[in-house]
Amino acid sequence: MGAERKAVVLLSGGLDSATTLAWARRDGFVCYALSFDYGQRHRGELDAARAVAQSLGAALHRIATLDMGFIGGSALTDRALPVPSEPSPGIPITYVPARNTVFLATALAWAEALGAHDLFIGVNAVDYSGYPDCRPAFLTAFEELANLATKAGVEGTKFRVHAPLVTLSKAEIIRMGVSLGVDYALTLSCYAPSEEGRPCGRCDACRLRAKGFAEAGLADPSCV
Amino acid sequence: MGAERKAVVLLSGGLDSATTLAWARRDGFVCYALSFDYGQRHRGELDAARAVAQSLGAALHRIATLDMGFIGGSALTDRALPVPSEPSPGIPITYVPARNTVFLATALAWAEALGAHDLFIGVNAVDYSGYPDCRPAFLTAFEELANLATKAGVEGTKFRVHAPLVTLSKAEIIRMGVSLGVDYALTLSCYAPSEEGRPCGRCDACRLRAKGFAEAGLADPSCV
Repeated sequence: MGAERKAVVLLSGGLDSATTLAWARRDGFVCYALSFDYGQRHRGELDAARAVAQSLGAALHRIATLDMGFIGGSALTDRALPVPSEPSPGIPITYVPARNTVFLATALAWAEALGAHDLFIGVNAVDYSGYPDCRPAFLTAFEELANLATKAGVEGTKFRVHAPLVTLSKAEIIRMGVSLGVDYALTLSCYAPSEEGRPCGRCDACRLRAKGFAEAGLADPSCV
Repeated sequence: MGAERKAVVLLSGGLDSATTLAWARRDGFVCYALSFDYGQRHRGELDAARAVAQSLGAALHRIATLDMGFIGGSALTDRALPVPSEPSPGIPITYVPARNTVFLATALAWAEALGAHDLFIGVNAVDYSGYPDCRPAFLTAFEELANLATKAGVEGTKFRVHAPLVTLSKAEIIRMGVSLGVDYALTLSCYAPSEEGRPCGRCDACRLRAKGFAEAGLADPSCV
């Protein structure tokens, strides 16, 4: 196998990022999982991220604190805005401005310090809810930026942003994850869970998840 | 003058970013100044940033908390590493991995929430200490990323990263700042100041600053 290949994997605690971590492990990467405490409404997703990182054998899991609450403008970080329970046209209010840019930039910083050249992100351009920073063109632009932004890039490293789910449907992601041994009971997708961490069943994220399990012909173990 | 033009200005509390804020104000922008508490060794620069923002008429000044201490690898955030007192060849140990990428990404998030299309950063490619993320190619790549990363970009906004100091020498920056009314007594450049906030006089940042004032034929008011 040669030298150890390290990767930084963005891990939210949801279904997609858990599947992405399992994929990176299957590909032989030693995985450094990175989550963010960025003033999101609920902390249940950080508990889920911890459980997923341990379950899937991440070498290390770190939670970066990033105060984005002052930015406002998103229903996911601004408590004054309600999470919609009906789908809306266009880019939804749950979009956090430039979130994946901030997350990837921080992942890049850690990658450079670790000597890793590979970043994994569980974005998806099919069931992607219309977020601009989930598109392949965005990911390619970030790779180009990473090579210019870093000491490693100046010295010849080519950073790669892996988005193994980008062209998969939610049902395909779930089937893939099951084959890779992901325990979806540990994951949390809901934007507005109860105090006890139970999904609301009505938000965009719950809807996409339920549709995915239905189309995959599987029961969602987190709803049992 | 038409509609109000807002800009997000990265403000460290040092000489360069203070001059950049003055430049953005002179250009007619309503300025939203953004500083970072990212585990840097000393907090004196945040006090300096507050004083500079007020002195130069920023509309708002926010300090984003970003825990980058877990990343390690830089003498500016890792207390186990000494700040060098002699120049060294290559990219110095005071380089923080991907720092300007993280800072610009966060500035972009705020800009999008504010409806601003302009970001200002005080990087400099002349006396730039060899940091890769101070080069014009990096800034252009970030503009391209910003247009792909955001709802505003998808809807047709062209973000612009202004780096008005990028081709100036330190002496030219200082002469420019003086003509724009910057009070350099408020700024702090040192990487390793004393508890009382006095500059060490030996680190790269102190050396560049002293050389700049000498070449501009001016006394540094912070040393009086």
